Amino acid sequence: MRIYADNAATTKMSRRAIDAMIPYMEEAYGNPSSLYELGQQAKEAIETARADIARLIHANPQEITFTSGGSEADNQALLSAAARGKREGKMHIVSSAFEHHAILHTLKKLEQEGFRVTLADVHEDGLIRPEEVEEAITEDTCLVTIMYANNEIGTIQPVGEIGKICREKGVLFHTDAVQAMGHLPVDVEKDNIDMLSASAHKFHGPKGCGFLYVKKGIPLRNLIEGGAQERGKRAGTENVPAIVSMAEALKETVEGQAENTARQREQRDRLIEGLSSIEHSALNGDASKRLPGNVNFCFEGIEGESLLLLLDDKGISASSGSACTSGSLDPSHVLLAIGRVHDVAHGSLRLTLGEDITAEETDYLIASVREVVTYLRSFSPIWRDLTEGKKPFIL
Amino acid sequence: MRIYADNAATTKMSRRAIDAMIPYMEEAYGNPSSLYELGQQAKEAIETARADIARLIHANPQEITFTSGGSEADNQALLSAAARGKREGKMHIVSSAFEHHAILHTLKKLEQEGFRVTLADVHEDGLIRPEEVEEAITEDTCLVTIMYANNEIGTIQPVGEIGKICREKGVLFHTDAVQAMGHLPVDVEKDNIDMLSASAHKFHGPKGCGFLYVKKGIPLRNLIEGGAQERGKRAGTENVPAIVSMAEALKETVEGQAENTARQREQRDRLIEGLSSIEHSALNGDASKRLPGNVNFCFEGIEGESLLLLLDDKGISASSGSACTSGSLDPSHVLLAIGRVHDVAHGSLRLTLGEDITAEETDYLIASVREVVTYLRSFSPIWRDLTEGKKPFIL
Repeated sequence: MRIYADNAATTKMSRRAIDAMIPYMEEAYGNPSSLYELGQQAKEAIETARADIARLIHANPQEITFTSGGSEADNQALLSAAARGKREGKMHIVSSAFEHHAILHTLKKLEQEGFRVTLADVHEDGLIRPEEVEEAITEDTCLVTIMYANNEIGTIQPVGEIGKICREKGVLFHTDAVQAMGHLPVDVEKDNIDMLSASAHKFHGPKGCGFLYVKKGIPLRNLIEGGAQERGKRAGTENVPAIVSMAEALKETVEGQAENTARQREQRDRLIEGLSSIEHSALNGDASKRLPGNVNFCFEGIEGESLLLLLDDKGISASSGSACTSGSLDPSHVLLAIGRVHDVAHGSLRLTLGEDITAEETDYLIASVREVVTYLRSFSPIWRDLTEGKKPFIL
Repeated sequence: MRIYADNAATTKMSRRAIDAMIPYMEEAYGNPSSLYELGQQAKEAIETARADIARLIHANPQEITFTSGGSEADNQALLSAAARGKREGKMHIVSSAFEHHAILHTLKKLEQEGFRVTLADVHEDGLIRPEEVEEAITEDTCLVTIMYANNEIGTIQPVGEIGKICREKGVLFHTDAVQAMGHLPVDVEKDNIDMLSASAHKFHGPKGCGFLYVKKGIPLRNLIEGGAQERGKRAGTENVPAIVSMAEALKETVEGQAENTARQREQRDRLIEGLSSIEHSALNGDASKRLPGNVNFCFEGIEGESLLLLLDDKGISASSGSACTSGSLDPSHVLLAIGRVHDVAHGSLRLTLGEDITAEETDYLIASVREVVTYLRSFSPIWRDLTEGKKPFIL
């Protein structure tokens, strides 16, 4: 059996998304800035895509800027809000410790430029408390940036409540919705979201394409200077095939959302139940306030990387944390943020299910993980120390 | 007859480039940062692409950073060189007035940060003089950035001579090679190029993908912060299908270069000869030191936009300047830089031929342009003034 259970890292492009892309590579290949028909066809295609995406998140088309992905959108959102803050003498930003590195590293850069950053606590359940965000806001705060759903443990943050607080206080609210888009209903109007980042390849669209929603009236600062594309706010020839494909992928994902979510949730809960029965294991993050396909566990006494390689041998693609940091030996900053100690955080496993997950596959996942964890523990010195009482169990 | 004669704006993807892309959308869709096989396949594919591209420009693989296109590469190159200059107290940059806006607008931004910019003269023939670049370099100069070939008039700059001067003076040399890549032999080693930008969709590769060559030892500054991709210098999940496709497109273009260039040059010269016979017209830029497919003319007494629309009716896709500024009513900054006055610059036409251009198509281009120019002049008030002697002819 082969199971791709790393849909938080990237998703397989859907047939519809690929089919939408091809004509803009083979036929309507014009540059959207060109006046002739071939160019105008391309221009119309991206404007239709913009309108489709805007509608799906309850925004206006002119509020959507296409980017090369979620990281670019995150960077541009934060630098734009910071530039505005600086002009107004507001040099304080509120965020959280378990944001994606595209946010955290940009915040580091802003700190070097004189901004002050307050990271709201992430509680053991993987959730931010809106009242704590509210307390962190001062008169100098120009931006609150809190992710919609965490990329490792999948916990869904109270964005609606945070948005409401920010709107009342007159502070910009940005959310990195890279993991949520397509998988949860997103409504920027209802939730008072001022800026939002998304990435196509997380919802069965193409890699190298994303978008930034920015509420009308909030000025964007260019990350890439040059031509007049994207109302002058993002230079470079538009990636027409990818933009069209992204819109198609989002439409498809949103259309199937209710049904897919129900199926995923059922299998997610089944998987959580199955893995919970492995001794000295623990689910990371709240069991229900999480993405429909996300399961993240810590297993005591083992090392995540070996777990992944052995699961790969069994045809299972999984990860220990975010793909973006997999080259690193440091334990996940997300697991540390929710209070896991280093040793335990090292033995983590993230399984992110596809929309088409079946009960049979879930059972295979449970059996495989159980087998591999048992095997690894059989020669783990840490596990021996734990079972011999030389070290206390934490989980 | 349908002729796409705007290959400087964008090119049609080649069959090979499309075919190279598809498997990485349909099958090997893993995230290259992932440890399992599906991820490692993707990782290997982009490293093979990196090695292929490096070899084709005489660089080392670790000197290639993938970007979302030429504009991003230009921005990152300039900001990186400037950051290095600032650290060394060197706040002066040499460039030229007819660079692409991705360069000129970034230079504007750097001027706001305290950098001083000297723009070397562009002579009437559309060429920069190396000795004038040399004269412009001071002890404070941290960077010389001169394009390889101009995007509007196609003139090929003396990059080898400029590179030699910069290397001798210990000043970084960047070249925007977006128009040259694939169409001219590029050798960063021989030409002493320290940084070079390229864009896949200009050589029959995909939109939304490019690369930045940076000589080993020169530190890059992130434009996009986040994950550890591209040695930590460009965050965001790698656009695997596009990267693989770009490498394939470059291989194909370089393989066919000698033969295609000979064919294009012959038709380019035939086209120049044909259009020169239209009265009160003039070729923009040197007749031979230009890209093999580039023809750029000014026709007195007409307006470029009408010319393009009527050519479009005849099945010809052409442009008046760069696609990136086609929304603007200002005359081309490139034509102004080579000394064309406003009135004349407004009546410009750029025809950029494909590699497969035929003599028959060239004849059709000549006949169509002649017909449309004559027609437009028949009711142009400026043309009437000129022919009635109320205004002097310039061309």
